Amino acid sequence: MSVRTDPDCLFCKIVAGAIPCEKLYEDDEVFAFADVNPQAPFHGLVVPKAHLATLDEFDDSGAELAGRLMLVAKTLAAERDLPGYRVAMNVNSEGGQVIFHAHLHVLGGRQMRGSLG
Amino acid sequence: MSVRTDPDCLFCKIVAGAIPCEKLYEDDEVFAFADVNPQAPFHGLVVPKAHLATLDEFDDSGAELAGRLMLVAKTLAAERDLPGYRVAMNVNSEGGQVIFHAHLHVLGGRQMRGSLG
Repeated sequence: MSVRTDPDCLFCKIVAGAIPCEKLYEDDEVFAFADVNPQAPFHGLVVPKAHLATLDEFDDSGAELAGRLMLVAKTLAAERDLPGYRVAMNVNSEGGQVIFHAHLHVLGGRQMRGSLG
Repeated sequence: MSVRTDPDCLFCKIVAGAIPCEKLYEDDEVFAFADVNPQAPFHGLVVPKAHLATLDEFDDSGAELAGRLMLVAKTLAAERDLPGYRVAMNVNSEGGQVIFHAHLHVLGGRQMRGSLG
């Protein structure tokens, strides 16, 4: 399946295999890999293969894809028998987003703190 | 439309109007309201009307619903002209979940810190 990509995007390059990663999951539409700067014992990133810069670029037709990111996060946690986990997506710079290819953080392996940032 | 509810669940009671809230959004499947203990100038909670205790209870057929929570978060941010925002869902106690009716936090109105908790 051909998907929209951005040749200058770090995460598009990772999805394409042009930059190595610790791959955690892949299907036709979704890819997941380990965060190279983990904030918790487990810290994965779940991304759409299509280049969507932020959550703001998901229109109503993208609801299922957005939800599939969540369900892949669930799967990653279940595969590791994590008793609990947190999923988070930063949107735009004020939201803490650094890489402008939408990505869902999945953190676990320790008690998550109350602060959401 | 009838949805599964839990008569003992705080968020089911809020959705049903039995406990007052500052309502932010409502459609057939999704409800949103202001967090009573905000961690940011804007802090909303987006929930499925159906009682699903955690993200782990969303099966593959729930992908679109999970994604609609994300898109409602996007809408709430857009309505307030937030330049950025963070969405987060805590799953189970170790994930920081306190109320066991799945809910997506939406935080904005200030720079989000790098820590995801």
